[in-house]
Order: sequence, then structure tokens, then C-alpha cells
Amino acid sequence: MFITEIERFIDEDLGYNDISCTVAPDEFAGVTATATIFTKENCTLAGLDVAKAFFDYFNIHVQTEYLNGDDICAGDVIFTLSGSTVSILRAERLVLNFLGHLIGIATLTRSCVRKVEPLSHVRIACTRKTTPGIRKFEKMAVIAGGGDAHRFNLSDSIMLKDNHIKLMGIEAAIKAAKNMASFTQKIEVEVESTGDAILAAKMGVDIIMLDNMEPGEVIRTVETLKREGLRDSIIIEASGGIDQDNVEEYAKTGIDVISMGSLIHKANWIDVSLEFSMSND
Amino acid sequence: MFITEIERFIDEDLGYNDISCTVAPDEFAGVTATATIFTKENCTLAGLDVAKAFFDYFNIHVQTEYLNGDDICAGDVIFTLSGSTVSILRAERLVLNFLGHLIGIATLTRSCVRKVEPLSHVRIACTRKTTPGIRKFEKMAVIAGGGDAHRFNLSDSIMLKDNHIKLMGIEAAIKAAKNMASFTQKIEVEVESTGDAILAAKMGVDIIMLDNMEPGEVIRTVETLKREGLRDSIIIEASGGIDQDNVEEYAKTGIDVISMGSLIHKANWIDVSLEFSMSND
Amino acid sequence: MFITEIERFIDEDLGYNDISCTVAPDEFAGVTATATIFTKENCTLAGLDVAKAFFDYFNIHVQTEYLNGDDICAGDVIFTLSGSTVSILRAERLVLNFLGHLIGIATLTRSCVRKVEPLSHVRIACTRKTTPGIRKFEKMAVIAGGGDAHRFNLSDSIMLKDNHIKLMGIEAAIKAAKNMASFTQKIEVEVESTGDAILAAKMGVDIIMLDNMEPGEVIRTVETLKREGLRDSIIIEASGGIDQDNVEEYAKTGIDVISMGSLIHKANWIDVSLEFSMSND
Amino acid sequence: MFITEIERFIDEDLGYNDISCTVAPDEFAGVTATATIFTKENCTLAGLDVAKAFFDYFNIHVQTEYLNGDDICAGDVIFTLSGSTVSILRAERLVLNFLGHLIGIATLTRSCVRKVEPLSHVRIACTRKTTPGIRKFEKMAVIAGGGDAHRFNLSDSIMLKDNHIKLMGIEAAIKAAKNMASFTQKIEVEVESTGDAILAAKMGVDIIMLDNMEPGEVIRTVETLKREGLRDSIIIEASGGIDQDNVEEYAKTGIDVISMGSLIHKANWIDVSLEFSMSND
Amino acid sequence: MFITEIERFIDEDLGYNDISCTVAPDEFAGVTATATIFTKENCTLAGLDVAKAFFDYFNIHVQTEYLNGDDICAGDVIFTLSGSTVSILRAERLVLNFLGHLIGIATLTRSCVRKVEPLSHVRIACTRKTTPGIRKFEKMAVIAGGGDAHRFNLSDSIMLKDNHIKLMGIEAAIKAAKNMASFTQKIEVEVESTGDAILAAKMGVDIIMLDNMEPGEVIRTVETLKREGLRDSIIIEASGGIDQDNVEEYAKTGIDVISMGSLIHKANWIDVSLEFSMSND
Amino acid sequence: MFITEIERFIDEDLGYNDISCTVAPDEFAGVTATATIFTKENCTLAGLDVAKAFFDYFNIHVQTEYLNGDDICAGDVIFTLSGSTVSILRAERLVLNFLGHLIGIATLTRSCVRKVEPLSHVRIACTRKTTPGIRKFEKMAVIAGGGDAHRFNLSDSIMLKDNHIKLMGIEAAIKAAKNMASFTQKIEVEVESTGDAILAAKMGVDIIMLDNMEPGEVIRTVETLKREGLRDSIIIEASGGIDQDNVEEYAKTGIDVISMGSLIHKANWIDVSLEFSMSND
Repeated sequence: MFITEIERFIDEDLGYNDISCTVAPDEFAGVTATATIFTKENCTLAGLDVAKAFFDYFNIHVQTEYLNGDDICAGDVIFTLSGSTVSILRAERLVLNFLGHLIGIATLTRSCVRKVEPLSHVRIACTRKTTPGIRKFEKMAVIAGGGDAHRFNLSDSIMLKDNHIKLMGIEAAIKAAKNMASFTQKIEVEVESTGDAILAAKMGVDIIMLDNMEPGEVIRTVETLKREGLRDSIIIEASGGIDQDNVEEYAKTGIDVISMGSLIHKANWIDVSLEFSMSND
Repeated sequence: MFITEIERFIDEDLGYNDISCTVAPDEFAGVTATATIFTKENCTLAGLDVAKAFFDYFNIHVQTEYLNGDDICAGDVIFTLSGSTVSILRAERLVLNFLGHLIGIATLTRSCVRKVEPLSHVRIACTRKTTPGIRKFEKMAVIAGGGDAHRFNLSDSIMLKDNHIKLMGIEAAIKAAKNMASFTQKIEVEVESTGDAILAAKMGVDIIMLDNMEPGEVIRTVETLKREGLRDSIIIEASGGIDQDNVEEYAKTGIDVISMGSLIHKANWIDVSLEFSMSND
Repeated sequence: MFITEIERFIDEDLGYNDISCTVAPDEFAGVTATATIFTKENCTLAGLDVAKAFFDYFNIHVQTEYLNGDDICAGDVIFTLSGSTVSILRAERLVLNFLGHLIGIATLTRSCVRKVEPLSHVRIACTRKTTPGIRKFEKMAVIAGGGDAHRFNLSDSIMLKDNHIKLMGIEAAIKAAKNMASFTQKIEVEVESTGDAILAAKMGVDIIMLDNMEPGEVIRTVETLKREGLRDSIIIEASGGIDQDNVEEYAKTGIDVISMGSLIHKANWIDVSLEFSMSND
Repeated sequence: MFITEIERFIDEDLGYNDISCTVAPDEFAGVTATATIFTKENCTLAGLDVAKAFFDYFNIHVQTEYLNGDDICAGDVIFTLSGSTVSILRAERLVLNFLGHLIGIATLTRSCVRKVEPLSHVRIACTRKTTPGIRKFEKMAVIAGGGDAHRFNLSDSIMLKDNHIKLMGIEAAIKAAKNMASFTQKIEVEVESTGDAILAAKMGVDIIMLDNMEPGEVIRTVETLKREGLRDSIIIEASGGIDQDNVEEYAKTGIDVISMGSLIHKANWIDVSLEFSMSND
Repeated sequence: MFITEIERFIDEDLGYNDISCTVAPDEFAGVTATATIFTKENCTLAGLDVAKAFFDYFNIHVQTEYLNGDDICAGDVIFTLSGSTVSILRAERLVLNFLGHLIGIATLTRSCVRKVEPLSHVRIACTRKTTPGIRKFEKMAVIAGGGDAHRFNLSDSIMLKDNHIKLMGIEAAIKAAKNMASFTQKIEVEVESTGDAILAAKMGVDIIMLDNMEPGEVIRTVETLKREGLRDSIIIEASGGIDQDNVEEYAKTGIDVISMGSLIHKANWIDVSLEFSMSND
Repeated sequence: MFITEIERFIDEDLGYNDISCTVAPDEFAGVTATATIFTKENCTLAGLDVAKAFFDYFNIHVQTEYLNGDDICAGDVIFTLSGSTVSILRAERLVLNFLGHLIGIATLTRSCVRKVEPLSHVRIACTRKTTPGIRKFEKMAVIAGGGDAHRFNLSDSIMLKDNHIKLMGIEAAIKAAKNMASFTQKIEVEVESTGDAILAAKMGVDIIMLDNMEPGEVIRTVETLKREGLRDSIIIEASGGIDQDNVEEYAKTGIDVISMGSLIHKANWIDVSLEFSMSND
């Protein structure tokens, strides 16, 4: 995490004159306090590196026995901190906001991954539906939960979506994309029918995304691809309206990837708290 | 919204070479397309100004008949757009990410406001539990939903929280805060007992926040304040563990403000879509 | 002070190739020099934290026996520095520019505070008339001098000024502001007559600012408010054309706050110098 | 002026939710208001381009009959504005802060220039004693007043100051500087005695700066340089403790440049106001 | 191109007070001048969009009949400009610096592409050896010349290089990479022997890069892969020490991609000039 | 080098999730590796400070026995590094890109300087033809090679070029420039004929630049200036179409400075490599 980023986030929460933190008389300023950060729910950890970056910035010494991706129980201590009282007070809300959100994402991802594991090797992926400004942190939280980050932005792999296809026609769009893509990039096409799935697979795209198909239609499309001998050369992704409630149904359809915007936008925050102990305890 | 901000958000989603958008041959580049943005759920609007700022940046002409705070129904068209196809495709995900998140917040806020309206004049407020980097947009969404934005950051009003008080003692902390505050700032104190509530009110703070009190304890505290003749000179806020399920209970306790981090961190995104229509339709 | 800020200020003064500092042969580069920063006038200190932030950035070790707000005499040594010669030379002008300006503000503020102390409990406040780009430093200098920082920007408390009132009418403007304000914010109204002062007080604003009133008119307004039983529920501020020459007159009018843009824009710089001593002295 | 700069200055004054400006009902939002900016003192204009850049940013139409450097009288209208009420209210303080400060500098500079004009061709220059963050605006204000901007930063010309010389010795320092300077740069040396002035002139520096010399000593130094035949090949600058009270004395010593930090740091703000007129007036 | 970027580049070249451009009297300021930008060498165009972004920023009207990738002859007019004299003078050097460099890259790329076209379908790609700060412009210039941009940064596809393999061993590294990669990413492995090429292909990587192999060794490796039935499932890239002098030899080896850092770092600038014509010509 | 700059350059190369560097299991993360940076060609060093700034940022310990400007031989080790494997891998390409480019510039500059040294005292200078975004690094590389950096930007000295003169006429332009220049700035005029050279010299400019003159014409112009007694009071620069092939011819013409854009834009990168050794070697 860059210092320029850290300072931008601090600036949002701090303002120019944090009086609440300066009510303490000067003799407290030098006092080293200790504090712990713990959670009140079972969860999957994420964002520990983000939290550490803030603690480093504030010269707060930090210890943890966990790594991103570890499952912990309600009450477990995530971090033990020691540093100046004022610094800990200033880092508190900012770090908890990151942790609450990112651990929430990792926990929801892990829950979905657990659901599908007994059923197939399907991957659980997020999408570009991310909170503006913190995509990289959210995608890393999905990875911490055992999910797949999918592409990061519009440029790092090529995805022809419904609107691109509407504009160009599917054949022309795939042809143009194959012509323009770097050899390092995969080409993915969003299709809404079995016919288009076959067409795209025949034209040699790397990934087809079955958009908003019911599980039954997904199964039929996979079968047709198999019959045509096209199944092994492509990756099949399903997306659209899939969340933790129906993910298992899709996991049984024989596809490779289930992508769910909900991993991020339906992930509620985990309740993470900081408890202070005065250094004279 | 600043151009520097707009470009930072675009940069996150765009990368350096968006091939998917450039598969169209040159004759399409100049084509003006039209598109609509609509929602699939009943909701309360927010972030319309944010969306417009992005459309302006991309030279997309935009029309709407709504204002932030308007309630709309599933299927209602929020925006009608016209502009270059490539520009609309580039703005699409970014704008939808903002709208999905912010409308979600406004809608949850409005729902809580509706619940308490028949019961009392209590205000529903958010807190500093916000997604890092976009606090101002989230607070404005709470306002759009009829909520109160609470203080923005650590400097714009003074709030003595549990950890400040642990450090200094409540009397010393309030005394110091009163000494250091600007005459333009209110002083709020977080208390965990009726006794501290009385003490803080007697010392002349502007707001007391009853932290994690059960509704019964809140009622007893309000009663005690009344008996002491202190009720009218202070604002009473309750916070901690309040969400849409128990908000009505707190609304009946006679307090002035209920603050809920959950307005933001439990607000799921509203499903907002962009549908394209070629200009030659 | 953020590193991003520090570097922006350094960038302004340094340019890409400071030859004057590199005329020294390489054997001097490693030499540790010592230097002192002292003032040639009696003054009230401010900006010591700003200076320290620059010294830290340049790895210059710094010692001081003073705090912001301390009164010192001409000739007193503010800082003792030790570090690389080149670093001290590069930090010199930048630090002196901040200190000269900020100590000037604190000193003028202290002088005004001293004048009114024997007369009343009135506070001396600055305004939003600050030098663009360094408001937070200037406001902290006013605080160091014993003054009140007033609101920081247009959003952290609400102030209805002459032009807002001209647009809306005073009643409508106050009504709208009360409706829109957060419970954490105070509402201030600028009034130009006793009648409007009474009206605003009756409508329950927190602060009234008597704009450009002569001391006599201020007294009459305060009296009228008292007679109406409104005096105790509001804070009364006077502003407009008040500076160190007439501040005592206003201090005797019975108001709570005198705000003066001149604390900042009429504060001449204090003469602060850096004197070098070679380490082999 | 860059948009990135404009937005940084606005951000300082605006915050996230300027309620005072939004108390007006929606029907006022589209109303075009007119306003004038005028001054209450005779002064020399500066910063008109800065003001225009802000007005442009806010889509405020602006007219003026003046140029930077023009002398105007108390009451003269500097700008006539028309635009949305809210935009004018938001630009108001920011623009007035710039104008008050920069016109103050230009006016003080012009006053000093006027004093010395009848006496000699000496130039009045500022120094690197500038307010951190806005040096370029302040130096342009000095130019508007008829002064000389001196060098901008440590890299654009070479100046060997007392501390450089203390470190290296004057001969070695000049020799090194001549070796390292680009052919496009002038070399200036600060000297504290006539002897060093002669030495520096003989070694071929472009400018000598007589530091903190009394007028008498300045005259003696100029005379000695003339006797040695060195006068015509160098520029002589005097600096240190010169302000508008003693500038005429130095103007008569036969030197080329008088540099005064006080042009900037003793320049009080000019009183500039914005008066609104509703469009329906 | 973002406005924040444009301003950063302008800031580097402009400084605070461009006197050379302001020597003209005021009556020239409003004069519209016309100018042409042309080249003195045959070349392949690139960076036209970059140039237009600067002209737009400076309100210079610009016309061209070319697109990036077009081949033009010495003397052809790339752009015809009209706008204020001062604006054109300020944009001149900046635009020419971009065009000279980027057209140089496109021209060298096109020359290499032309050489290999008659020999095979091999692609010519650049690498991450790019000038710090302007990679995206340089990669787009390679694309304009008909080359392949290769991956943009360390995160958008996975490349195990010699040092990664030295650290982990090739099998362990590939296994880990396959485990960690998103389904949207290709995995490339740099190999230094035929044996490692076979191993990597068997493990199912997408691309193997033959590092610093002589053409003969490349041919032997391709043959072995064919014999093993592995040729069709992977992309073969050769890199290391290939430039326009030996590129044809590698083109005949049966590989898919030749990557050359030299496309960028050996591309000399094309001589591009701006010629002014006064509007009254 | 500022941290804000360092992070901007890293951001360009790193992206959000560098998987190639994280394939190593956790036990490697703490391992300290050592590596060397060496060159495969004889060259003149530059950019060592830039490289060190990146190593510092990544907490990589670095040693070198060289300074910028030192000539080294193929195979010489420039830096010895020790630090975390992952950090070295992340810094690698970025540092090598800077070193390859900057050492290339210093080496070409040194080569030109060597050619002219036996012939005259003429200086070899670069121009404002620099790669956008990294001018300061390129100019410092020219200095490392023994060249002259010329002016940095449009504001730090005054240069009247062909287009300025076309606009104003040479006499009017010089007159205006002399009027507007600071006493700290030199004035340079670009001339295309001996007549204009004489005129400019008579008017007292500091530098004349003979633009695109053949060596014979340069000699005639110098002779004429001598005959007119103007030679000693001005600096004569030749520019336009001069590179390492014809620089000696110009060195013999009796001028003071030869400026060559080609020092930067024809300087090919030097081949610089990083070789890793595991810490257990």
C-alpha cells in the first residue's frame, strides 16, 4: 500500500485538528498504550496487510499470529498493538472500517467456496462490481476467501459483453477482438444462448460467460458443447443472479467458474473492535 | 465532484487500453447511441449528482426527471443517456457501481426513517463507519434517504469516546474539551451509564451518546435526566447494535437521535442496469 | 503533516538541481553540522510541529524546550539542529517561511487576547479569510496564540451570511438550515440589525454574528436580547472592521466572541533566523 | 493555473456538504445572479488571472476593464460577475482571499517602486521569503506592481549565501559554482564586506549581493568597485533589513537592485468585497 | 489522457512565468495563428491522440487526415493547427517531444513487422523495458506500428522469469502459479533449455518464452515440442538480444512471438517540426 | 527523489497483485537474498541516486564504489544489493529501466565531450527535447556525462526562438524581453543570419544561438562579431542538426556551446542486468 494512498485515507477521517485526541494532558502523549483488535463473529481474515500498513505509518507496533485467509472464531484476537495512545486512537476507525468490510467479503467468499467444494471443482469469482476506489483491496479479500479475482479492469483481459455484441454482432466482434488482443490476453465472450456459446467456442475464444441462464439451460449448453467436442478447449463461466442461496445449484452444472458480484456487494461487515488497555495495567 | 477524483475512479476501472470497446470499426466511433439506466427494485434515489459528473466528464448527454431522495418503483427509468457508444460503455460499470451502492444506502435509510416516523421525531443518523475513500458520497446518500450525516471527521465536532474517557476520566476529559473546543463546535460524550449521562449533562456538553444500552436502560436514563431538569438542554443519541430490526424499539424511548453504522455497512446494493439502444433503432 | 504535503512544499522551493548546495566537495557531504534557529523579536510560538515535520523528512535531528503557545524573548533559541549540511541548507528557507508567518499570527493573536482578558471573557477568533493553501496551519497558529479557530470550511458548521439571506429572506433561510443541519452542527446567522438578531434568536439559532455594527449598536442589541430573555440561549459574535486597535472597545460590549480576519491577514512575519555552526567549531 | 491546483484550493474551503448554499429552494438553483467585486482602498491590481481561473472553473461569466498592474481607486469595480447564485457564493471567499493578498503585495511593491523612481534606475525585487505553497502567485504580484521576481527556486540560478561560504570559503565556493553552472545561469554571491565584493567581482560572478550593509557601507563598496574598474561588469544588489521606510536611502547608493522580503511578508491585505445583486433587481 | 496527466507534463516544461511567450504586446494575445506539424522523414504515425489531448487542453483547433498507424512520407503535414499564438508556442515542445518519441517507436516496430511478414505469422512484441512514466504511450505506439503490447505490468498476466525459477525450482513455481492465477490470466514461463520448455508445456502453461537462445536452438526446441505433441497447445515466444538486424532469422524458426525491448529503447526519435504562419499571411 | 514520484513509477509497473513474486512459499518471504547489478558495455554512470532512492523505498541495502560520472568497463559491478527476494524482484525492472536509459545518455554525452576536448573549450549541452515526465533525470544524466543542462523550462531563463521573432520582429522582441526579464535571468536569442547575430549582440543579449547554420557560416559569424568588438560580451551557441558525427566540425568554429537534442533522443539504452544469488550460496 502506497504512502500516498495511506495519507489520502487518513485525510478523509482526520481533518485538521482532532481535539478529542488532544484532551489528554502532555504527560500522556509519550505514554505507550496497548490494545487488541478482535472480532465478535466467526470469520475468514483479510486485509491484515492493509491494517499493518496503517499501523506502520503511525509507528504502532503490531503483532498477529494469523495470515489472510485464516478462519478464526468469535473472540479471537487478530492484532495486539502497542504505541502512543493518540496514534492508536487515530488509526482505530480507519483500520476497523477496512477490516470490517474486507473480512466480510472474505467470509462470504469462503462460505460460498465451502458450499461448492463437495460438489465440483468450480471456482467462485467476483466481478467488476466493486466499491469505487478500493477495488484492489476487495479483490484481494476475495482471494483471501479462496475465490478468484477475475479480471481487474477493462484493459487486462478482453471481455465482449452484451452491449459490445449488440453493437457489432458476435462474429464481427470476436474477429476484431482476436485481431487486437495481445498474445498474453484471454478473450471472453458473454453469450445469452446455447447457439452463441457454440459459435464463440468454434471461433476459438478462451472463455464463454453464460449470462443469466437458469441452471437447466446451463446444463444443456454444457452438454451441447461436449457433443460438439468443444468443451475441453474453453472455460465456461456462469454469471447473473447467482448468490449464496443458489450457488450450489450452479455448481452442479459442470461449468468451471461461477462469478458473483454479490461476493462484494452483499457482504455485510464483520463486527471488529479495538479494546484499549492502559500501559499501567 | 472534482475532476481529479473523477479521473482517479476512472483510472481504477479503465487501464490503458480497453480493447473490448475498440473492437468496433471506425464508422461506429462517431455514432451517437442512446441508453437508459433503470432499477429492478423499488428504491430511494441517491448519487444522481455523482452519476451526472461522470456523464459530463465523458460528454454524455443525460436527462432525468428525478432528484436525490425521490422514491421510485422497479422498472422506472432513472437516466436517459445519449452520447458516443464507447463513452457510454466506459462510464457504465463505474456509474452503476456508485448508483447500486448509494441507492442501497438511501433506500435502507428511508426504510428506517419510515419505521420511526409514526413513533417519534427521532432522527436516524449514520456514523464514521463508512467505506474508506467514499465517505462523502455515502453520507450524502444517508441525507438523501432522510437521515442525518452525523459529524464528518475527527475534527469537525468533538466526540469523547470510551477510549478517550478511559484515558482521562470523564470529568477531566469534558473539562479539557470545553476548554479546547471552538465556539462553533458541539461537544458530544459517549456514556455507558445513567450516572455518567447526568454528569455529562450537568457539565454542559451538547450531546450525550448512550452507548450499547438496552431500550429499558435508555428509558431510565431519559427519565432521570428529566427529573434532574437536564433533558431540555441536551441532545440524546443512542448507538450500538441498532439496526432496522430493533430501531422502532429505540424510537419509543424518548431520545433525539439513533445512530446506526448499519445504514451504510448493512446496505446491500440495489440492482441498477444500463440498457443500450442503437441510435438507428 | 502528510509526506505528500511536505514534498509539495519542498518541490516549490527546491527545483531539480540545487547547485548552490553542491558546490561543497564530497568530503563535506557526510559532515554533521549544527545550527540554531532563533528569533529577533519577543513572540508567541506556533508551527513548531510543522518545522519538526520538515526536519524529520530531511533526517535532521532537532531539539527544543518550547511548545506551541509559549512566549519567548528576542534572542531565545527555538530549535537546535544537527544533521547534514546540505539537508539543513535545503530545509532552511522553507522552515523559516513557515515559522515567520505562523509565529507572526500567534503573536498578534496573543496580543489581542491579552488586551481583552482584563475586560471580559470574550474569545478572539479568526475567520475564513486565510491564505489559500495553508488554512490549517494558520488556524492552528491562532489556537497557539490563545484564539478560537472558528469553523474550518463551508461544511463543518452552518453560517448564513448576508448573501444567503439576501437570496432567501432571513426566516426562510433559517428554517431551511434548521431542517438540513445535522444535530452535530451549530447554525450561525449573520445579522445587520437588532431586529434580525431578535428574530434569529427566537428561531433558535445557536450563534448570531453582528456584522459591521458599531460598539454602541452592539451594546443595544445585547441589551434587547437580554430584555427578551434570549441572551443566555445564544452565542453572540461581532465581526467586521475589528482589529487590534479597536478590539478592546468591542470586548466591553457583553458579547461572547470577536472574530477578526486581521489576526491572519494583518499579521506581519516575525524575523526568525538560522545560524550555522560548523561541527568542528 | 492548473485545474488540479484550482480543485486543491476549493477543497480546502468547501468540504463535502455546503449547507449554507443549499438552503435555497430548487427554483433558485437555475437563477442567474449578478455581482460585483470592488475594493475599498486605492491599490494596484494583481491576481486577476487567478480570479478568472476560478470563475471559469465555476462557469461564472466575468468582465473587467483592468489588467494586472493597473492602479485603481477605492470604490472601483474590478469584476462584474454573472452566474448561478450557488457558484458565486462558493467562489466568493476563495477569490477574495487571493485578491486581498495579491493586490496587497502589488500595492506595496508599486509604492516602493514609486519612491525610488525619481532617485535612480534601481529595481525593487522580492526574495524567496514567500508564503509556502503560493510563491508563484506572490512573485507575479510583485511583477504586477513593477518589481522584479528575483530567482524562483534554488535551482534556477545560483546564489552562494553566507552559509555556503562559511562552509567552503568564498574563493573555493565561487570556483566550484563557476564550474558547475550552466551557461544559461547567472551566479550571485552574498558578501558582507567590501573586500569580498571586490574578490567576487574579480572572479567574474554576475551579481554580488551586499548583505545587511548600512547605506554608507554600500556607497563605499560601490566606489571601490568603480575604482577597480569592476563596476560595469557586475550587478549590485543590496538586501537585509530594507523596507518601505528606508528604501529611498538605499536607492541613492548607486546600486542596481534592492531586494526586500517585506514586499511579501509585510504586505497587508487590501479590503476587497463581493456585492450581490439578484438578477431580478 | 487524463487532465491530471496533461497538467503534470505541462508543469514540467512551463514553469511559473514564461516570459518568452509574453514579449508580444497585448494586441497579439487575441490573434489567431495557424501552424502545421510535419515530419522530415518517412514514418509510421503514433501518439496522434496524445497530441490532440494537449491541443484540446490549450483550446487549439486541430485537423488531421491521418490515424495512428498510417505510414506517411517526409514532408507530409500531420496536423494543421489554429489557435492563440501563445497557446501554440506553449504546446509546441511538449507535443513534439511526444510525437518524436512515439512515432520513432511505431516506425521501428513497423519496420520489424515488415521484415517478418513475408516469412511467417510471427508477432513482434515489446516488453516491460519502457521509459519510466510513459509506458502506456509507448505500448500504444508499438500497437500503432503493428506490434503486440505484451503484458502491461507485473499483475495483468503471470510470467515466471529466471529469478523466480532460481528461487523456487521450475516445477514448484509453475504449480504455485497455476494454483494462484485467475482463470482470466495466462501463465508464461521463461525457459533456458529445451528440457525446461518440454516440462513447462507438459505442465500446461500457456506461453513459454525461450530466453536468449540462438536461432538453431530455438528450431530444435520447436521440433522437440512438435514431436512430443505439445506444439499446438502453447504459444512460443523468443526473447533476448533480438533487434532489427537479426529478427528475420528468428522469424523463420517456427515460433509465434518475438519480443524485443529494442522496439522502444533503440527507437530514435523522428524529426517532427512545427511551422508557424501568422494569421495575416 | 520524492516518495510521491517513487510510488507513481512503481504503480506503473506493479499493478495490484504481482502473483509471479508470490509463488514462493512463506518461508522464503523472510529470506535475505543478494544480487548484483552490472553492465555489459563500457559506459559512463548516471542515475545512481535514482536507483538508490528505489532501493531505499524497498528497504534493500545497497553498496557501490562509484559515483555518477564515473567511467566503468563491461562486466563491472555497479551495485551489490541485499534484501528480501520479493523486494528485489519488484525493484528490478524499474531500476534497470532508469539505469539503462540514463547511463545511455551519460555515455553518449561523455563520448561527445571527449571528441571536442582536444579541439576547444566548447561545452556540449542538451536541450528541452527530453522524454516527457523525466526531464530532470535526463538533464542530470547529461551533467553526469560532463555536459551542460541548458535551461530547465520555459521560465528559468529567457529564450527568444524563431517563432517568437517571427511574431514580434527581432528588435521589438529583444526590447520587450530586456524589459521583462529579472536581473537574475539571462536572455538568449535564436538567430538565423550573421546580421541578426550582430543586431542581437549590439542590443546586449547574453547569448545568441546560431540556428541550423553550416560550420562555415558559424565561422563567418564569429569572425564578424570579433571584428565588431562584440565577441567577448556574449556567449555563442550553435544548434540544429548537430550529433556525434559532426560535433567536431562545430567544435572548431570558435563558439562557446554546442547544443544537441540528440544527447537524449539518440542515446540508446545501455544493457544493464541484475543477477541474483540465493543467500545460501
